[in-house]
Parts: sequence; structure tokens; C-alpha cells
Amino acid sequence: MANNQLALDRVFHALADPTRRTIVMRLSAEPSAVGDLFQPMPMALPTLLKHIRVLEDCGLVTTRKVGRERICEMRPEALRETDAWLSQQRSVWEARLDRMEAHVLGLQEKENKNDKRKKRK
Amino acid sequence: MANNQLALDRVFHALADPTRRTIVMRLSAEPSAVGDLFQPMPMALPTLLKHIRVLEDCGLVTTRKVGRERICEMRPEALRETDAWLSQQRSVWEARLDRMEAHVLGLQEKENKNDKRKKRK
Repeated sequence: MANNQLALDRVFHALADPTRRTIVMRLSAEPSAVGDLFQPMPMALPTLLKHIRVLEDCGLVTTRKVGRERICEMRPEALRETDAWLSQQRSVWEARLDRMEAHVLGLQEKENKNDKRKKRK
Repeated sequence: MANNQLALDRVFHALADPTRRTIVMRLSAEPSAVGDLFQPMPMALPTLLKHIRVLEDCGLVTTRKVGRERICEMRPEALRETDAWLSQQRSVWEARLDRMEAHVLGLQEKENKNDKRKKRK
């Protein structure tokens, strides 16, 4: 459980930055060399490398040397936990909203019955 | 777009902490007074209030005074953007996995045909 919490901390932290989200979006579509990731980015190479390192540390991205290039690749399975956590919250809210809706509908029905009774009198 | 990015930064940052995720989980189930949230938490009240403030700042939680209590409530709609972003990445990966699978199946089929041809000769 503590490990899961730490993994969630790291992935949410990694995604809390627009540059890292852009990298994730690009790598989701296809693996990419660091050089190709760097070209459109308005930042120094060491800054980009730091962001890639954060993504590597939380397991979202792996990198490997191919000749003189370093290739970055997504590991979508690292997002599974995050996704599962958000889904769990959503299902709790949805169940609560359903209960609230049922409660409101029940109240309305009761009120309608009372109205009809009053009219009959 | 810049506003969306900032909203995503804040929500992901807010969720990158186990105490704040615990608060979100509790408030997903039902609204709660700060005092009730505080009781099971192993921390000082000012620390808890700081966490609640971070959740308020990113729009995940609202608070209101009711008599002498401060009631905290979830705003699930603030998670919609985060959820949508993750879903988008998932659909990009899934499309890519489907293409890869189709490619591998294509190669296998080609190989099977070649094997049959060789056997006939």
C-alpha cells in the first residue's frame, strides 16, 4: 500500500508539469530520440533532460541508447494505477449522485401524491 | 489552452500527496466538517488546513461556514479535465497497440503462406 501511494505521488507529480505532459503526449504516439523531442521545445537541453529523468524515475518513460542516440519510450502500464485511482473516485461520486437523484425523485413523488390528495379534498 | 494547462498543473499537483488524496477519497463519499476530517489524521491542524487550501485553490474542494463548523465538499467536475487528459493518452496508446498487433498478425500470416509454399515445393 505504501509503495502504491509512493507510485501515485510520483506519477501525479510528474504529470503536474506542462512540459512533461507534452513529452508524454508525444511519446504516447511513438517512441522518439531525445534530439527530436528537443527540437520544438523552448528550453535548454539540460532542462529537457531533467524532465525526462523525472518521467523515468516514476516509470512513465524508459530510455535506451541506440548508436549515438538516446531513444525515449512510454510505459503506459505506469499510468494504470493513476487511472484506477481516478476511476475509483468517479464511481464513488456516481453512486452518491445516483442515491441523491433517487432521494430527490422520491421526494417529488411524495409531493405529487400529496398534491393529488389535496385536490381530491 | 494556457488556462487548461494551469488547471491540469494544479489538480495533478494537488493529487501528488497522500494526505490530499485521502481527503479527496473521504469527501467523495460525503461532505465533512474540518473537525471530522482532522480526527483520524496524524498531523497538526494547521498542516491539514494547508492541504485543504491546496485542494480549494485547484477547485477540487469547496468549503463553507455552517455555524461554528467549516464544511468541506468535493467538486468532482474539477477532475473532469484530468480524467479527459488521461483518457486521451489511453486512446492514443490503444490505437498504437492495435496498429502494432495488426502489423504483427500481418507478418505472421505472410510467414505462414511462405511456409505452405515451401512445403508444396
